[in-house]
Amino acid sequence: MLLETSRSLITKGWTIDQWQSAYQQSGALPSDLLSELLNSLSDNDPAWISVASADQLAGQLDALARRLADVNGDMSALPLYGVPFAVKDNIDAGGWTTTAACPAFAYTARDDAHVVALLRSAGAVLVGKTNLDQFATGLVGTRSPWGAVPNTFDPAYISGGSSSGSASVVARGLVPFALGTDTAGSGRVPAAFNNIVGLKPTRGWVSNRGLVPACRTLDCITAFALTVEDASAVVSLFSGYDAADPFSRTRPTSAPAHFSCKPVLAVPANPRFDGDNRAQSHFETNLKQLENMGATLVEIDFTPFSELAQLLYAGPWVAERHVAIERLMTEQPEAVHPVVRGIIEQADRYSAADAFRAEYRRAALARQIQQVLATADALVVPSTPSIYTIAQVLQQPVALNSTLGTYTNFTNLADLCALALPGGLRSDGLPAGITLIAPAWHDASLVDFGVRWQAANTTSPGAPGVWQGEWPPAASPDYVSNRGHEVMVAVVG
Amino acid sequence: MLLETSRSLITKGWTIDQWQSAYQQSGALPSDLLSELLNSLSDNDPAWISVASADQLAGQLDALARRLADVNGDMSALPLYGVPFAVKDNIDAGGWTTTAACPAFAYTARDDAHVVALLRSAGAVLVGKTNLDQFATGLVGTRSPWGAVPNTFDPAYISGGSSSGSASVVARGLVPFALGTDTAGSGRVPAAFNNIVGLKPTRGWVSNRGLVPACRTLDCITAFALTVEDASAVVSLFSGYDAADPFSRTRPTSAPAHFSCKPVLAVPANPRFDGDNRAQSHFETNLKQLENMGATLVEIDFTPFSELAQLLYAGPWVAERHVAIERLMTEQPEAVHPVVRGIIEQADRYSAADAFRAEYRRAALARQIQQVLATADALVVPSTPSIYTIAQVLQQPVALNSTLGTYTNFTNLADLCALALPGGLRSDGLPAGITLIAPAWHDASLVDFGVRWQAANTTSPGAPGVWQGEWPPAASPDYVSNRGHEVMVAVVG
Repeated sequence: MLLETSRSLITKGWTIDQWQSAYQQSGALPSDLLSELLNSLSDNDPAWISVASADQLAGQLDALARRLADVNGDMSALPLYGVPFAVKDNIDAGGWTTTAACPAFAYTARDDAHVVALLRSAGAVLVGKTNLDQFATGLVGTRSPWGAVPNTFDPAYISGGSSSGSASVVARGLVPFALGTDTAGSGRVPAAFNNIVGLKPTRGWVSNRGLVPACRTLDCITAFALTVEDASAVVSLFSGYDAADPFSRTRPTSAPAHFSCKPVLAVPANPRFDGDNRAQSHFETNLKQLENMGATLVEIDFTPFSELAQLLYAGPWVAERHVAIERLMTEQPEAVHPVVRGIIEQADRYSAADAFRAEYRRAALARQIQQVLATADALVVPSTPSIYTIAQVLQQPVALNSTLGTYTNFTNLADLCALALPGGLRSDGLPAGITLIAPAWHDASLVDFGVRWQAANTTSPGAPGVWQGEWPPAASPDYVSNRGHEVMVAVVG
Repeated sequence: MLLETSRSLITKGWTIDQWQSAYQQSGALPSDLLSELLNSLSDNDPAWISVASADQLAGQLDALARRLADVNGDMSALPLYGVPFAVKDNIDAGGWTTTAACPAFAYTARDDAHVVALLRSAGAVLVGKTNLDQFATGLVGTRSPWGAVPNTFDPAYISGGSSSGSASVVARGLVPFALGTDTAGSGRVPAAFNNIVGLKPTRGWVSNRGLVPACRTLDCITAFALTVEDASAVVSLFSGYDAADPFSRTRPTSAPAHFSCKPVLAVPANPRFDGDNRAQSHFETNLKQLENMGATLVEIDFTPFSELAQLLYAGPWVAERHVAIERLMTEQPEAVHPVVRGIIEQADRYSAADAFRAEYRRAALARQIQQVLATADALVVPSTPSIYTIAQVLQQPVALNSTLGTYTNFTNLADLCALALPGGLRSDGLPAGITLIAPAWHDASLVDFGVRWQAANTTSPGAPGVWQGEWPPAASPDYVSNRGHEVMVAVVG
C-alpha cells in the first residue's frame, strides 16, 4: 500500500512560511484550508492513530480566533497562525486520546503537553496524532497494533521508528511539521528513511511534561520538517525551561551559534553499514559533499560511541521503560506488543547496583566522547547503517533494530544534540541521511550548518513529488514567499 | 581520654598565614617545625590512622626543596610552602596506605589523589591520615576499628563523622587544614561538633580521582580549617575541572561571588532538635546574630528537604556503597564493621527500577528545593539537631546517625554547596554550629558571608585554648601576621 495524499490537496508540501503567506498575503481562511486537509486524510493510513474530528477542529478554530482577537488581529504575532501539525501519540493533547500505540494503555488527556500548549498558543492547529513503535520502544515503526508504517518512497520498506507516523505525514507534505520523541534515535532514524529533517535538541531544553516516558532520564521531544528552518523554528517555539519538569534545564547563555570558519567534522573510522554497499558508497558521496562545502574531515575512533550505544538496551535503562508502564506490565502483560514486552521484561535482570555501575560506565564513556568531540565542530555519521524491509524487520525484530541504532543510541546518554538531514537518494532510489551530532547546547550551530548543507543538496526533501518549490533553496532566497503566493492565487481565486 | 597535644607545641593553632609568616618572615625551616609537630603526635590518638614516618617526612621535604628551587626560591610562589595537612584515610596519598578504616580493605596507593597532588604541588606537607567512619558510612565517628574519635570539647561525646579524625586534628590545632569527604554530611557534622569550619564545595568542582567512593554520584571532598579564609583558600587550591574524573564539572563563569546587599536567609519552619532544648535555644541565638548582621530571615517549608534527606539511606543510593566494596562484601563480609555492613547489605533490596524511581523522586524534590532557595540568598540550618555521647551512639547506632543527618543528607542529592560555621558554645559548653546552604556554584557567596559571620562571632574557633590570636579577627585585620611573628621569635630565636 503506497500512502498517497489526494493529488489535489493544495497545501501539500507547504512550509510554515507558505502557510503564513496563504493567510497573511492571500487571505485564505484556516477553516477552509484545514477542513480540506482533514477531508483528504485517509482512514486507512497507518501513519495516523487519530485525526481531528470536526468538533476538535471547530474547537481549535474558535480558540485560534480568540487568540487572534487577543493580538488585535495581527497574524504575525502568532508565528504558527493556522499552521497544521501532527503529534506522536505518546504526547498529550488536551481532550485527545493518548495511546502510546497500546489500546489497553489509552487514556484521554486532560491537558496539553507543555510543548503542545506552546505550539497551540503560537497559533498551530493539531490535525492528528501519529503512529509509533509502542511506548516509543523501537527504531523500526513496525511494533504497533495500528500496523507497520510504510516507507514513503517504497512501501515494502520501513518508515523507521519509533516516530514512524510523524515522519511519514511530514514527508508526504500533509503537515509542515510534526513532533516526535527521541530516546535511542526515534527522532532521526525515521527522518533519514523519509528524506526529511529531524532535529533532536539538547535534552532538557524541551519540557517533557505530558509525555508518556520511555526512559525519563533520556527522552527528548523532537521536530520533523521538510526544511532545517522549519524544524528549528518549531523547536525554538516549544523549547524553554519548565520548572514543572524536574529534568528541564536552563540554556546557558554561552551556547555557540555556529561552527568555526573552517569547520572540522569528526567521522567514524571504518563505519559499519551492515554489508550495505549502497549505504556505504552513498555516505562516501555525502562526505565528499561536506568537503566540497569546505569542511575538513578527521577520522575518530568510534569505540566509545559504540560501547555507549550498546548500554542503552543491554543495560539497566530498560528498567525505566518498565517503570513507565509498570501497572500494565503487571496486570495485563499480554496487552503489550510481544517484541516490546520482551525488551521491557529484561528490566528484572538489573539491580540498583547494576544501575549505578552502568551509570559510572556511562559517565566515563560520555567523558571520552566529549573529549573526542572537543577536537571538532561536530560528529557526522550516516543516520543509520542500512535500511530494511518490513518483512526483514518482522523476521529479525530485535537484531535489525539494534543495528539501526548504531549511530544514534549513544546521543542522549552522552548528553549530545543532533540534526538528521536528508542526504539525497541512494542508487536504488531510497533515501539515506546524515546526522550531525554535537555537545549539549550546540543546537544552533547544528542548525546553522544544516541550512548550508541543505543549500548544497540537489535533492528536494520529502517523498517524491511533495516538494514543489525551487530547490536548492539558496538558488532563490525568496523561494518560500514566491511559492506561497503563486499557489494561493489558485486557492482563494 | 582527652586528646591533648603537648602544651609546648609552638605551631599549635596556627593558620596558613601564620605558617607562611614563620617561613617567609621569621626564617623558620620546614624540617624543624614539621619534625617537632610529628614528634608531638601521640600513638594513642584515635584521630590518626597513620602519621608520616621519618622517611615519609624526609621524602616530602626533599620534594619541597626541589619545588622551591623550581620557583627560584620564591616561597610566595608556593602558597602552602611547608604547611602541614592531614587527609581522611579514604583519600589516596602516593606511597601511603589507604585503609578507609577497614584493615582488610587496605592497600598502598601508588599515586596521590588529584586533590593531594594539587596540595603537595602548592608546597603542603602531608603529616597524617585520619580516622573515619568505615568507608565514610556514618555521621558519628564511632564506626572504626581504630576506635571512636572523642569530641575535642568533651571526650564523652562523639567527634561526628565520617570525617571524625580530620575535624579533630584541625580543632586541636595540629594542622591548619585537613581534607574530609561529604556524601551525607561528613564534611559538616564533625566541623560543628568541634567548633571549626567545614566547606563542602559544589559537587564536581573538586575531582574525586583517588578517593575510595562511598556514593560515587554524590561524594564530595571537603576542607576543614579554623577559619573560613583557610578553608576557602584550600578548596581554591584543590578544586578545578579534571577530565580524568567523569563526574568532574566545569565551573560556570556566572557563579555569584556574594549575597545580595540585604541578604535573605531561608530558615526551616519548626526545626527539629530531637528534644534538645539547649540546641534549640542556641540556634535561636544564632538566628538573632544573623538578624543583627542585617540578614532577613524567612521561614520555609522544610518538607522537601526532609523527604530528600531520607532518600539517601532509605533508598537505592546504598547500592553505590555496595558497588564500592563489592569484592570485600562478597569474600569477607565479616571484615566490614557490623553497623556499616548492616547498612550496605540493604543494597540487595533495590532493583534498577527502584533506582530510577528514586532518581525521579530525587529530581522532583531537588526542583522543589531549587525553587525554595531561589527566594533567598541561602538556607541556614543548625548543622545538626543535637549532639550525642559515644555511649548513646553505640547503643542506637543507626537511629541517632539518621537524626544527625536531618540538616545535611539532602545537600548533595539536591546539588547544593554548604559551609558549616562555628556557632559558639551552648549553655553546657559544647559547640554547636550553623550551616549555610546554597545552589551549586554559589560557593564563593557562602564564603563571603561566612567571613562576615566569623567577624561577628565572639567565640574563638577550635578546641578550648587552641586559638591564641585575636578574635574576632575583624577587630584586628593584621591578627594573623602579628600572631605568627610574635610566636616565631620564640621558635627561631
